[in-house]
Amino acid sequence: MRKIRLGMVGGGQGAFIGEVHRIASRIDDRYELVAGALSSDPQVSAASAAELGIAHDRAYADFHQMASAESEREDGIEVAVIVTPNYLHFGPARVMLQHGIHVICDKPLTAHLEEAEELAMLAKDSGCLFAVTYNYSGYPMVRQAREMIRSGELGAIRLVQVEYPQDWLATDIESDGQKQAVWRTDPSQAGKGGSIGDIGTHAFHLAEFVSGLKVSSLLAELTSFGEGRKLDDNAQILLRYNNGARGSLWASQIAVGHENGLRLRIYGEKGGLEWFQEDPNKLNLSLLNMPKQILTRGGPGVGELANRSSRIPSGHPEGFLEGFANLYKDFSELVIARGNGDDTNIEDTLLPTVADGLRGVRFIETAVASSQAGGIWQDLN
Amino acid sequence: MRKIRLGMVGGGQGAFIGEVHRIASRIDDRYELVAGALSSDPQVSAASAAELGIAHDRAYADFHQMASAESEREDGIEVAVIVTPNYLHFGPARVMLQHGIHVICDKPLTAHLEEAEELAMLAKDSGCLFAVTYNYSGYPMVRQAREMIRSGELGAIRLVQVEYPQDWLATDIESDGQKQAVWRTDPSQAGKGGSIGDIGTHAFHLAEFVSGLKVSSLLAELTSFGEGRKLDDNAQILLRYNNGARGSLWASQIAVGHENGLRLRIYGEKGGLEWFQEDPNKLNLSLLNMPKQILTRGGPGVGELANRSSRIPSGHPEGFLEGFANLYKDFSELVIARGNGDDTNIEDTLLPTVADGLRGVRFIETAVASSQAGGIWQDLN
Amino acid sequence: MRKIRLGMVGGGQGAFIGEVHRIASRIDDRYELVAGALSSDPQVSAASAAELGIAHDRAYADFHQMASAESEREDGIEVAVIVTPNYLHFGPARVMLQHGIHVICDKPLTAHLEEAEELAMLAKDSGCLFAVTYNYSGYPMVRQAREMIRSGELGAIRLVQVEYPQDWLATDIESDGQKQAVWRTDPSQAGKGGSIGDIGTHAFHLAEFVSGLKVSSLLAELTSFGEGRKLDDNAQILLRYNNGARGSLWASQIAVGHENGLRLRIYGEKGGLEWFQEDPNKLNLSLLNMPKQILTRGGPGVGELANRSSRIPSGHPEGFLEGFANLYKDFSELVIARGNGDDTNIEDTLLPTVADGLRGVRFIETAVASSQAGGIWQDLN
Amino acid sequence: MRKIRLGMVGGGQGAFIGEVHRIASRIDDRYELVAGALSSDPQVSAASAAELGIAHDRAYADFHQMASAESEREDGIEVAVIVTPNYLHFGPARVMLQHGIHVICDKPLTAHLEEAEELAMLAKDSGCLFAVTYNYSGYPMVRQAREMIRSGELGAIRLVQVEYPQDWLATDIESDGQKQAVWRTDPSQAGKGGSIGDIGTHAFHLAEFVSGLKVSSLLAELTSFGEGRKLDDNAQILLRYNNGARGSLWASQIAVGHENGLRLRIYGEKGGLEWFQEDPNKLNLSLLNMPKQILTRGGPGVGELANRSSRIPSGHPEGFLEGFANLYKDFSELVIARGNGDDTNIEDTLLPTVADGLRGVRFIETAVASSQAGGIWQDLN
Repeated sequence: MRKIRLGMVGGGQGAFIGEVHRIASRIDDRYELVAGALSSDPQVSAASAAELGIAHDRAYADFHQMASAESEREDGIEVAVIVTPNYLHFGPARVMLQHGIHVICDKPLTAHLEEAEELAMLAKDSGCLFAVTYNYSGYPMVRQAREMIRSGELGAIRLVQVEYPQDWLATDIESDGQKQAVWRTDPSQAGKGGSIGDIGTHAFHLAEFVSGLKVSSLLAELTSFGEGRKLDDNAQILLRYNNGARGSLWASQIAVGHENGLRLRIYGEKGGLEWFQEDPNKLNLSLLNMPKQILTRGGPGVGELANRSSRIPSGHPEGFLEGFANLYKDFSELVIARGNGDDTNIEDTLLPTVADGLRGVRFIETAVASSQAGGIWQDLN
Repeated sequence: MRKIRLGMVGGGQGAFIGEVHRIASRIDDRYELVAGALSSDPQVSAASAAELGIAHDRAYADFHQMASAESEREDGIEVAVIVTPNYLHFGPARVMLQHGIHVICDKPLTAHLEEAEELAMLAKDSGCLFAVTYNYSGYPMVRQAREMIRSGELGAIRLVQVEYPQDWLATDIESDGQKQAVWRTDPSQAGKGGSIGDIGTHAFHLAEFVSGLKVSSLLAELTSFGEGRKLDDNAQILLRYNNGARGSLWASQIAVGHENGLRLRIYGEKGGLEWFQEDPNKLNLSLLNMPKQILTRGGPGVGELANRSSRIPSGHPEGFLEGFANLYKDFSELVIARGNGDDTNIEDTLLPTVADGLRGVRFIETAVASSQAGGIWQDLN
Repeated sequence: MRKIRLGMVGGGQGAFIGEVHRIASRIDDRYELVAGALSSDPQVSAASAAELGIAHDRAYADFHQMASAESEREDGIEVAVIVTPNYLHFGPARVMLQHGIHVICDKPLTAHLEEAEELAMLAKDSGCLFAVTYNYSGYPMVRQAREMIRSGELGAIRLVQVEYPQDWLATDIESDGQKQAVWRTDPSQAGKGGSIGDIGTHAFHLAEFVSGLKVSSLLAELTSFGEGRKLDDNAQILLRYNNGARGSLWASQIAVGHENGLRLRIYGEKGGLEWFQEDPNKLNLSLLNMPKQILTRGGPGVGELANRSSRIPSGHPEGFLEGFANLYKDFSELVIARGNGDDTNIEDTLLPTVADGLRGVRFIETAVASSQAGGIWQDLN
Repeated sequence: MRKIRLGMVGGGQGAFIGEVHRIASRIDDRYELVAGALSSDPQVSAASAAELGIAHDRAYADFHQMASAESEREDGIEVAVIVTPNYLHFGPARVMLQHGIHVICDKPLTAHLEEAEELAMLAKDSGCLFAVTYNYSGYPMVRQAREMIRSGELGAIRLVQVEYPQDWLATDIESDGQKQAVWRTDPSQAGKGGSIGDIGTHAFHLAEFVSGLKVSSLLAELTSFGEGRKLDDNAQILLRYNNGARGSLWASQIAVGHENGLRLRIYGEKGGLEWFQEDPNKLNLSLLNMPKQILTRGGPGVGELANRSSRIPSGHPEGFLEGFANLYKDFSELVIARGNGDDTNIEDTLLPTVADGLRGVRFIETAVASSQAGGIWQDLN
């Protein structure tokens, strides 16, 4: 199978998520990273490119150059990955689409709602593929959970409880210049949401993705506990879903003792299930009047969809990177299919789309508005 | 040590919580059950009394008789335990106080706020001891958690997350006449609260008991999922605490897969802790920049207070009944002390008092009001 | 239901297991403790009796007196409980049987094989009931496990893995005079076995009780790690069962981090199960080609036998004391039945008998012999 | 950083472990797979090579050809990976060494002890690097455990308990032609060991690797439960270590309910630790008289060595493939260092060497001999 040519915006030395994307793109051997505008600092950009084996002439000073130059090459990049801070997603994403380059963009899609809306339109008009890396949807047992709910195993859904506690911002490490903390707590770089943008959107996407429901309205209580912090580091949200289900979402970056504690619990008339990101190869399933069952990735009772998103036998744990890689793998299949004249719509796959990205930004802004109004119910269209 | 003479109201054949109280009272050998008005059905009452070894002449047809007769005996009951359905707490509690008999009453204290207020006043005026069995406060590791927070180990508290999911009302078993379900889903017997009254008050008390904080306002979303059910079977509540801490409370009786899943998590500036009722001998403790620790009942690092509430060595699990028994044990010490001229105030012990009971009823009514108003913030006072 | 009159040998102030027996006897209200020879020190004996509400004239200086005096009273004790150190089981047990008093004896039955053999014969000849408190067989989910294996749910059993690690003897606390450690590490008081006698026999009984198999031969490696310790504090044993199954037993009192870690895992042709004493309300069940299931005490899929050994609903944890109490409850039913002319054989109940006690002593002596011979296979018969 | 040129022997379509090696080699981007003798069937070999992007002229019909041809190319492979069934490790490994090509070989090293001895000598004489993929030693928290023991945190080691239960051979699936089962249960392909060779050697290596001890003697009880099975599918082994420590090793492929349950527990005078392969990001640590601690990959209290073997932050689980990749990464550094004139000895790294591979084969043969002699102690040397 031929490899897809990839270019990266952001992700130079010292970055975190860029390396995650690179490993994820390598695991299934479907991509080769051939170009990059890896840093706004030209020297960092060049040094990072060298380290990554990107040819000197394809290490660009900025994303505009990359888009122009690559789109003119016979062997130019087919896909651009955008892993800059939130406020710098919009610019490169727009330019790539304008040059007919498919986009994989980190979340949240943009720092402002209007930008997200513009990207959604642009993506549609361009005909390019556009995925947003709500990567938790790539875990096999998350997909298994979704499939079980779609097939009606839990009956009508009544409750969706999702939480995403972390503790890395329990103290104000941004004052000490910790790079990740600095930009994520700065409204000019992160947008209006703090914890709600960084992790709350993951939780929100996961809840809708697995339940198959849509949130119709919400009520949010956002708080900043870190001294002098301008953005929320804790978010408590009540949710009403379109079918009458209820739920809550808790995101926190000051909950001491939690590393990356994304947990989803969904309850229907006939059953309940639970998935926990830190133990991702398991899915707890409870059906009415039956003992609790623990499904395992690759194990008995797990369906085709999850198995296709899995590489090694049960009991050999796959982790965060493999789940992330599933998005890359799925995206690669769409790109290859395009080349073969198959125009499968990305909306018909499991991949989070630009529309999901837009919905995530709307979620952030609605929650912020609800909280600023003192905690009142707000519609989420 | 002499045994305290106990009388019971309710708890006849077919009841659940009455037997729990009886076992709890026996474990530490501080009480003898000598009188009862065990059922509103005289035949059930007599048969139940016989089964329990209560003398025929002290098996009363109703609680009025019991109060009068016992208060006139030299060897009359010193303590009355009230384990009737909620709406029948008020009457017997009042009568016992009026006859100078100490009271242990199941929760919620009453079905109506005014009754709770009256009992609180009566208890004060009577000089009798009055405890409400928020029994989860009796678990040794719950007391350990409280003690650690009081001593400042977690720093200022920021977040209190409490949840209490069950699933026994996932279907409308009250239609089939299941005795516990019938009265607990009937407003005329249970009061205004369904799940919020039955288990939400436990969660509320536990959160305040352990954190040492008071809830200042709340916003509730109560729902009834069971077909035709008149009271809530699911409650999502946001809470603001008096020191600025935030929190949420989730109580549910339709969350399939949960048996008695009371879980408390509290986060402060310097640490977090977690306690789970179904694994009650453990307390998870996370201090900033240290590995998570698991404290065990009777194990290293556990203090005097918890150890005094414990009977057997670590690793030999104590359970629900032993935790419940701790309330009985503490209460017995107060009664004995009274007899010895020591007027220790029940408010100065760990025991849940009539004031806590009143606060619980107020919590229920405030939550119901918030929810009925569409989900708005309400002061809790 | 009338209460059975109980006398206790040993268990005075400062003892551990005596109090456990007393609580266990109280939980279901079937016994009253009316006599005692609680300590070899007459003052301790009297003081302990007073504390326990035993009448002055039934607080005996020694067990001989107790046996004689009580057997002559109209209202004399029906059952004697023996909770002295191992080497002091034989004497009182023999005397009680000789006076026609039923016996509940702590484990191991005796410090010497010949004594155990004598008791087994005496018990048979006397017609008295005799139980040995291998109390872990009283846990409801242990009984559930046994029942599932008997009914063939796991198919023919292939493997029995049992382990019982503790750490309280990791250092030589006997040198500091810790009372429990002193006698349990002293061959003249404990007998030939250290950890193997104190906890290994529990594990051995549990393995046979649940599997329904008998060990036919064993090979043992006993070690003493504590400085200057004369008895084993760690035992590794390979086992061959009478049906060809294999297994191992590990008992240790120096395995730092374990409190009371008795764990049993049994594997058959069609399934496997696991039970862990520190989380005793659960039973993990794995059937071929099905997801793992977690059965809970009182929950779905649990049978009559376990449910009869249980008091409160699922999710409300019962613990060590309730499991222990099940032996007392079962024993009380036999005693009452005798009084009613029903001579149900104790061998036909779930109770551990004097024969089980004898088998436990034989297990200890065989293991010691195997180990002393350098680790060779020995028949167990 | 330049990529190392890799050739693969075995691992064609339908194989399992070959793909694991390929992913492991890709994760850190240090290798490129440029040649292969992927199958003994030339057509499968060619088709597999095409699928993997190996140039047509470097897809060899057999490993002899590959060794000759590649060793003559300027850009020939530097490292050969051998992922054939056990009995086919020796041939290719020998040839590669003879052509001066470094070797990464799957375990067990060979099917016969003499072959393993020959390879050990050849490797030494050739000056080539030779690693055996006891991949569990690559997990960060395994390395953390080793480091803590080396630094004396647990004190002198007393006990090493290792177990490795699986259940995939609970029924005789080899009769149905399941490819992995067929060769692994066939002495002519697997060698003398069944479960002991396939997984027991992993457990054995892990125990010595982490404890820093050497087994001096062992006693084994090997059993075949699968109908008509010629090799063991269950192994119970007692071990004596060179410092006087004791231990046991249990490997099973018929323990229903276990997927890949490798678990290591080590106890010293001052502490104990536990690591479980199916939850590999955690390490349980118990120090005397302190609460149990749970160390997490990348979390507080974890050292340099583990952190260097890790890619992403704590709470984002790494799994089996990342652990495996650590061996590839470490090996790549040695190869690059060689090119730079640095002759760091592989024995001075964490990598399992040909000597470890030889020791593993000796362990298998000694265990088989012990068991065949009826279960007697045998020196391991």
